Amino acid sequence: MHAILDDIQPVNFHAGEQARRYLDTLTKPPGSLGALETLAIQLSAITGELKPSVIPPAVIVFAADHGVAAEGVSAFPQAVTAQMVANFAQGGAAVNVFARQIGARVEVVDVGVASDITAAGVVNAKVSRGTANMAIEDAMQPEQAAEAINAGVVAVERAIKAGAKCLIVGEMGIANTTASSAMLAVLTGEPVASLVGAGTGIDPQQLTLKVAVIERAIAARNADSQAPLEVLTKLGGLEIAAMTGAYLAAAAHRLPAIVDGFIATVAALTACRMCPAVRGYLIFGHRSQEPGHDVALRALDAKPLLDMGMRLGEGSGAALAYPLLQAATAMMGEMATFTDAGVSDKAAL
Amino acid sequence: MHAILDDIQPVNFHAGEQARRYLDTLTKPPGSLGALETLAIQLSAITGELKPSVIPPAVIVFAADHGVAAEGVSAFPQAVTAQMVANFAQGGAAVNVFARQIGARVEVVDVGVASDITAAGVVNAKVSRGTANMAIEDAMQPEQAAEAINAGVVAVERAIKAGAKCLIVGEMGIANTTASSAMLAVLTGEPVASLVGAGTGIDPQQLTLKVAVIERAIAARNADSQAPLEVLTKLGGLEIAAMTGAYLAAAAHRLPAIVDGFIATVAALTACRMCPAVRGYLIFGHRSQEPGHDVALRALDAKPLLDMGMRLGEGSGAALAYPLLQAATAMMGEMATFTDAGVSDKAAL
Repeated sequence: MHAILDDIQPVNFHAGEQARRYLDTLTKPPGSLGALETLAIQLSAITGELKPSVIPPAVIVFAADHGVAAEGVSAFPQAVTAQMVANFAQGGAAVNVFARQIGARVEVVDVGVASDITAAGVVNAKVSRGTANMAIEDAMQPEQAAEAINAGVVAVERAIKAGAKCLIVGEMGIANTTASSAMLAVLTGEPVASLVGAGTGIDPQQLTLKVAVIERAIAARNADSQAPLEVLTKLGGLEIAAMTGAYLAAAAHRLPAIVDGFIATVAALTACRMCPAVRGYLIFGHRSQEPGHDVALRALDAKPLLDMGMRLGEGSGAALAYPLLQAATAMMGEMATFTDAGVSDKAAL
Repeated sequence: MHAILDDIQPVNFHAGEQARRYLDTLTKPPGSLGALETLAIQLSAITGELKPSVIPPAVIVFAADHGVAAEGVSAFPQAVTAQMVANFAQGGAAVNVFARQIGARVEVVDVGVASDITAAGVVNAKVSRGTANMAIEDAMQPEQAAEAINAGVVAVERAIKAGAKCLIVGEMGIANTTASSAMLAVLTGEPVASLVGAGTGIDPQQLTLKVAVIERAIAARNADSQAPLEVLTKLGGLEIAAMTGAYLAAAAHRLPAIVDGFIATVAALTACRMCPAVRGYLIFGHRSQEPGHDVALRALDAKPLLDMGMRLGEGSGAALAYPLLQAATAMMGEMATFTDAGVSDKAAL
């Protein structure tokens, strides 16, 4: 992990500025493509290229279980994590459908599902059978967190070897909004009750319980808010650690990464706290309905591309946003300039 | 035109409700895909099918000039309309780039460019060489407006014959935000100054002039706000009339139409005022930076899919939103149900 942190360089500001100037030569009023222009500038800064490509994208879904599920914080039983892994492997989940649309292969990585995974094609990188229950003990031991982060790094490097030009990371793990909310409360100092939402759909009584469990875990674990790795280890999850590693690896390899919803953004915040230069490589796909997401986005000064009231996870929101990256690069690569097209610029008045 | 109005039926509420129920059997928490689920329900209501297809989409760009350009209301000279038509024909404009990405053919229709169009492949449906200057006289005569509306209807019917399953309509016409703002002020009763923006990029002095020209035209033309066709005829434009016709035709043929930015939304509002059942067939692609767009959207009770600070027109924002429709239909067509995938539903707790 220390090796990957050493490899991360800030994005190329100069390449971004070149893109900004080039945009104003294209046949459109200056700035008229709004956030798509900002996106093109960022993609140039990330890759160092004026006309980069983001084709093909890669989708990696990390799955793991959470000991804290035993506290009754989720609307679904823990067995659903493994069942959904099988659904991913068979191509039937939302992220599979959206990945097919954008021409992305989906790799599913088991970093800590509680049961044995028998579905074909799932990468076995199981660190342990779920985390420990953070309400009772630290969710992970430091070496487990490091191993899970490394699983994320390795998965991204595998995707890059297979040709990936854009990274989408998703997750599956019953109770992982609970772990993410605990991490976010410590990392930002915001009160738990302001972050916690319905997750996959709990009732008001369960919501009260969820807040109480998280508050208890935060008090008992006593993680140092200035030590992101400690926060991740004591309150996080194996798939959250893998996602953190994935964002670090994307930055180290100058690969644009589209961040999904709440859990992904907490992992991204963790990566940015470990190494602030990571931020420049991150593009935020969508605004989740989970209340904590806005807090996490603010902490990263991030404005997501989509705002569609979604709260599914899996990488689904990031996959839906991907065509906008493709459009931004196509704009740079294919649009005619005023000179090319013989169109009068404003100056012609 | 009367014939096309007679062909418009309300969307199929029953098919929409069937889609709503089916969505809750798919392997995701109920409602967790937010606006994408709403979109799927609307697409079922439009087409009457549980699992409709929106492939392929068709992009039609209507181009025309505006007599009011003589008042100095635009940042670009009038010659740019014809120059951009040539750019569309050569595939170099933003809408061409985004259309290629979504697999759509772009048809460019000249309904009233001031000069002769020689570019290959442009459909000649020229009603007149631009409108008259609405500050001095009615922009169109009633028979001209009818002819332009009909050009829109015919273009959509041609696209449907070629297999189109989704309609994207764009426009090009120097000074058409001026015409659209005038129409919108009359149709909604909102003050002109609250609607008018920088268009393609005018300075504050020109903005003051633009407001004054529009106010003068509105007073002089004295169109009946309850007569949408009269408002269109006296204050609109030939491409705005063609777009109005296109939305009427889409509704008549149960074809989902993605509405682009400000000018397109004013045309959509005109079509809905002529026949309220049109509204159900319209999907709003993006929120434009042009201030009047929010007013037009409110008048239609519409929430656009994208909000990216764009203000280009051409159909570009609608084309960027199209992949979300594709995702909504893929979700309905390809996702596994809880039963299919052997995933425990919430009820299993």
